[in-house]
Amino acid sequence: MRGALTIRPSSAPLLTAGQPLLRLSRGTINRRIPATTPPPCLRLTTAVAVGSAFQPDEATVPAPLPLPVPPVSKFKIALCQLSVTPEKERNIARARKAIEEAAGRGAQLVLLPEIWNSPFSNDNFPVYAEDIEGVGDAAPSFSMLSEAARSLQITIIGGSIPERSGDRLYNTCCVFGTDGKLLGKHRKIHLFDIDIPGEITFKESNTLTAGEHATIVDTDVGRIGIGICHDIRFPELAILYAARGAHLLCYPGAFNITTGSLLWELMQRARAADNQLFVATCSPARDTGACYVAWGHSTLVGPFGEVIAMAGHEEAIIVEEVDYSLIELRRSSIPLNQQRRGDLYRLVDVHRLNSRGL
Amino acid sequence: MRGALTIRPSSAPLLTAGQPLLRLSRGTINRRIPATTPPPCLRLTTAVAVGSAFQPDEATVPAPLPLPVPPVSKFKIALCQLSVTPEKERNIARARKAIEEAAGRGAQLVLLPEIWNSPFSNDNFPVYAEDIEGVGDAAPSFSMLSEAARSLQITIIGGSIPERSGDRLYNTCCVFGTDGKLLGKHRKIHLFDIDIPGEITFKESNTLTAGEHATIVDTDVGRIGIGICHDIRFPELAILYAARGAHLLCYPGAFNITTGSLLWELMQRARAADNQLFVATCSPARDTGACYVAWGHSTLVGPFGEVIAMAGHEEAIIVEEVDYSLIELRRSSIPLNQQRRGDLYRLVDVHRLNSRGL
Repeated sequence: MRGALTIRPSSAPLLTAGQPLLRLSRGTINRRIPATTPPPCLRLTTAVAVGSAFQPDEATVPAPLPLPVPPVSKFKIALCQLSVTPEKERNIARARKAIEEAAGRGAQLVLLPEIWNSPFSNDNFPVYAEDIEGVGDAAPSFSMLSEAARSLQITIIGGSIPERSGDRLYNTCCVFGTDGKLLGKHRKIHLFDIDIPGEITFKESNTLTAGEHATIVDTDVGRIGIGICHDIRFPELAILYAARGAHLLCYPGAFNITTGSLLWELMQRARAADNQLFVATCSPARDTGACYVAWGHSTLVGPFGEVIAMAGHEEAIIVEEVDYSLIELRRSSIPLNQQRRGDLYRLVDVHRLNSRGL
Repeated sequence: MRGALTIRPSSAPLLTAGQPLLRLSRGTINRRIPATTPPPCLRLTTAVAVGSAFQPDEATVPAPLPLPVPPVSKFKIALCQLSVTPEKERNIARARKAIEEAAGRGAQLVLLPEIWNSPFSNDNFPVYAEDIEGVGDAAPSFSMLSEAARSLQITIIGGSIPERSGDRLYNTCCVFGTDGKLLGKHRKIHLFDIDIPGEITFKESNTLTAGEHATIVDTDVGRIGIGICHDIRFPELAILYAARGAHLLCYPGAFNITTGSLLWELMQRARAADNQLFVATCSPARDTGACYVAWGHSTLVGPFGEVIAMAGHEEAIIVEEVDYSLIELRRSSIPLNQQRRGDLYRLVDVHRLNSRGL
């Protein structure tokens, strides 16, 4: 027989008050602090949630932000599940056409796939990469998205493209407002390294660098948290976005056939149901002749984990209504946020904790 | 147009070293500390993961324990999806018979449903409750489970029963070793309060008190984290158990028809896939004449989120093999634990952090 491992609180504090509790290593999230500055600390919030000994507001640190009132309560989202070819110019033209069609069908928000301007391979990333801080010809994919957002007066979450920045490459999602300006830029933070012998081996980290920030953006269609593909595998990121007040999480993603069939729908529905918000994903269309065969099945999921719309695996434009009133409805029916146990677990949002913002 | 909310680290520390960072309120997890003792602190680990600037080992605090070598690499688990009647003695006899049948079919671990000795209602909980610290007639359900485990030499995760402790009632799962001794006791920590007008309204908190601890138990068939029903809705608990080295999470649960169809399979598969371990659930069989109609569909899920076996909604005993070698296989194929971003998010296990144990 084995012993019980139930962990009970110690009656003695491990540290007395006054001792430093956490030093963040320089070179990671506080790179700009001069060497002579005392090491910064994670400041854990000291407030105790009113009305519950279980401290639900402590289950995320800092305490969760209230859900902001969105600029629109209902709007149409488009998921443009594009075919990707080796011809970059053709990919850009095809994307431009799809965005225009989506806007014509009433979409106020258009979501594109992960890596829509380039075949999905480590060999191709450097060839198709753009310096999005450059102008004109240096970043034709980026420029097209900005122009399309402005001329069609829609918000665009531009899927992702390989981004070149100095000698580094990133898998980057750009978000454009209705005036065509860049609202936010998410560099994939969890790179996709997988090795399932006989099925799929892929190591993004061979060519790409991971981003250093979670990205949440206030747009004309609500507060949107961004993840790219493998980012969806990590529930912590979605919890973090929900605590920052997201209405919608958007994940451009190119799952493959193996992980797609098992995990693609599951991950989206779980992130939506766990956090009681909307999740939208957009994949490239499937090309069985490509070196990397994408799963397709771009999807919109509601805050009860319900699939609202899903594409097949071929090229498609899904246009569907998002009704944000469902968020409050689900949260009032099953008040998960009031039921969390901050006395048992706490999800620390490291950057928000150390930031003066938000 | 709205503004970007990407949060970047501040260059200035909010606190200088030497200040206390978190005071835990007395009366919750450090109740026994005298009032004159300085307030205890959460001690965040200072070690930086070797080999990655992304600090994957910091994504859970304290750092995750290595997966222990389980006492068996393969074994059979039984999910006893029992019908529950208003007759407590009959429920106990029926459960005893099912456990014996499961053991006869080779099961080394038997999992029972949530609230298997009583109809599922607030009115019934106090009537059917047992003082499991009593003996003999005071706790016939508890005594039967202990006796069955000992005489059949199996591990039993005894679903749950209403437990009376002083003037409080809990929804409690008892885990028995092969010698019949109590290895661990989990009191449901997230009570099920739900209000979906026209479909279901139920407030466990009207009669029950929530437990104060997560519960993980070393057994002859591996390290097992326990949750009861609504506990499965909280991804933090499953992450916490995975970081404590769980091979298997067991959730006795009585989802209803509304949440069952949407969420039951989803939650199990998500907890398994996110944490790359096994998840087993056990529901009462469905009784459409009962005041609370359970969903059924007791399930075993593997570490890729794959459903290995699932009952329908009628009384059934599922006996299926658990192969722990799949855990390492999945974790080596997709090394989520090495890909987590401790520089961006950290899940704090409050009790483990403050405990001298584990």
